Amino acid sequence: MTRIAISGYGNLGKGVEKAIAQNPDMELVCVFTRRDPAAVKTASGAPAVPAADMSAWADKVDVLILCGGSATDLPEQTPAAAALFNVVDSFDTHAKIPVHFANVDAAAKAAGKVAMISVGWDPGLFSLNRIYAESILREGSTYTFWGKGVSQGHSDAIRRVPGVKRGIQYTVPVPEAIEAVREGKNPVLTTRQKHTRECYVVPEEGADLSAIETAIKTMPNYFDEYDTTVNFISEEEFEKEHTTLPHGGFVMRSGVTGNGTSQLIEYSLTLGSNPEFTSCVLVAYARAVARLSAEGECGCKTVFDIAPKYLSPLDDEDIRAHLL
Amino acid sequence: MTRIAISGYGNLGKGVEKAIAQNPDMELVCVFTRRDPAAVKTASGAPAVPAADMSAWADKVDVLILCGGSATDLPEQTPAAAALFNVVDSFDTHAKIPVHFANVDAAAKAAGKVAMISVGWDPGLFSLNRIYAESILREGSTYTFWGKGVSQGHSDAIRRVPGVKRGIQYTVPVPEAIEAVREGKNPVLTTRQKHTRECYVVPEEGADLSAIETAIKTMPNYFDEYDTTVNFISEEEFEKEHTTLPHGGFVMRSGVTGNGTSQLIEYSLTLGSNPEFTSCVLVAYARAVARLSAEGECGCKTVFDIAPKYLSPLDDEDIRAHLL
Repeated sequence: MTRIAISGYGNLGKGVEKAIAQNPDMELVCVFTRRDPAAVKTASGAPAVPAADMSAWADKVDVLILCGGSATDLPEQTPAAAALFNVVDSFDTHAKIPVHFANVDAAAKAAGKVAMISVGWDPGLFSLNRIYAESILREGSTYTFWGKGVSQGHSDAIRRVPGVKRGIQYTVPVPEAIEAVREGKNPVLTTRQKHTRECYVVPEEGADLSAIETAIKTMPNYFDEYDTTVNFISEEEFEKEHTTLPHGGFVMRSGVTGNGTSQLIEYSLTLGSNPEFTSCVLVAYARAVARLSAEGECGCKTVFDIAPKYLSPLDDEDIRAHLL
Repeated sequence: MTRIAISGYGNLGKGVEKAIAQNPDMELVCVFTRRDPAAVKTASGAPAVPAADMSAWADKVDVLILCGGSATDLPEQTPAAAALFNVVDSFDTHAKIPVHFANVDAAAKAAGKVAMISVGWDPGLFSLNRIYAESILREGSTYTFWGKGVSQGHSDAIRRVPGVKRGIQYTVPVPEAIEAVREGKNPVLTTRQKHTRECYVVPEEGADLSAIETAIKTMPNYFDEYDTTVNFISEEEFEKEHTTLPHGGFVMRSGVTGNGTSQLIEYSLTLGSNPEFTSCVLVAYARAVARLSAEGECGCKTVFDIAPKYLSPLDDEDIRAHLL
């Protein structure tokens, strides 16, 4: 049994707890929380433990899965935790990955631990598909599309607009852009040509709807470079249609081989729940981390460093017989 | 520069030669052939060398890519070559992989070489997608569909029917089956429900068309379990429409997480040329084999054993900065 601990009990931490229940070779030891542990009731009954007491659990846990946010939590938590545990995080601020890698690598190497960062679907599975596809089709173009799915950052931005009671934002890939890639046209696509943004807003009573719409559509960085639609709906409709977190997307590589032969590789995800799926990826890589640590490895790793066999609960012979 | 040699100069060997030309970090040293070398003119000008002289080239080649057939060539050639070189083959007889692995592993370990088997897209990239998807979505069903594409084995079978001058067979996935998987219905599919077979035949003059059609449709193992259509066409149409080797297919895993949330992972290939694409996969893994050998590894490997970073010409830092 691989003994797992979770740090942080939000959507992602709860998803990891559910994913562990689907893996009979894993057990959840405890959930570390910065809240009052007495107020945290886990679905599985695993104990909630103060994050400050982490060091007391160092020899009771094989891998700690960090479920905090990338903005402020993980840059501090992952290096700190890697001094005590093998860890996996889902750090997803692309531009800051080199710095995060260096910090985590130093901490993990000093402690002799394995620390995987940026695990999930993007970064994560989409990254894997980019490296495989680009290594195989050397001449070509790679495209990543996201959605249809809920962007938490854009939904938060909507909710900060005055007069907005509730709001959610879906990122939607432009079908014509995907078709052009599939047809081997190697299109050069602007931000606007790749994705549209659909917003659903429950306004406060008496709010100025036109002012809300303008504030959203012209918001710099978040919406001004996109074709955005704003739909005002009732709280009942919001509650009925917009409280899950679907997501997904596409990685496509369109290339040529030989004397101009077209070749297309396409990977897509259609996810009923983004946090539950990300959790499953984290748990599969936690298995890999436990094994690499048992083999004597240490330091910071990404999905590029991990041979696929380490993710599977099957042994090498079964993998070759059933999956090759 | 990684120095590559090719064994066998058919469709696959010629594809590997073209793929090497797309990889500036690789050079083609020579082509080993069982034919009269004087009769083999390579497109790149690389020398054709008698296969019997292989041992003289052992220290001039980093990786040998074996481009023979799985039925009779590779079971003998791969273990023999692994005594001299690091090698990559595309052995694709699924049922015989355990035996082939054991033979190649023994030879490679005795010689201190790295030998990769079963590299291509199925086995190969499809296998990778099966292991990633099944390791992540632990509850669910995996589906592999092939086509639309040319099956060489089925085309050969058609050409053995009396009265057939030329013939080609396309394997076609059933769209309704793919849709049912995409919709999360987890269908149980029979052989007949997954694929149909489309045949294009140029008959000999005066041949009995109805006898040809019956002979094809009732052929055991090849066609009797499928819905098969036989189209008789002119030699001109055959020459114009049916002389390339397109292929492709889908690996799909439909799973559930949490309390019944649907999740779908889909991977697909649309290949203008099956041998040219397979060649590109072989060349990318030849890079990995050269690196693993330089690190001191030896023995038989499959795609499951290779961390993705080994396939890329980029270094670790660039990979993390640009592909993660």
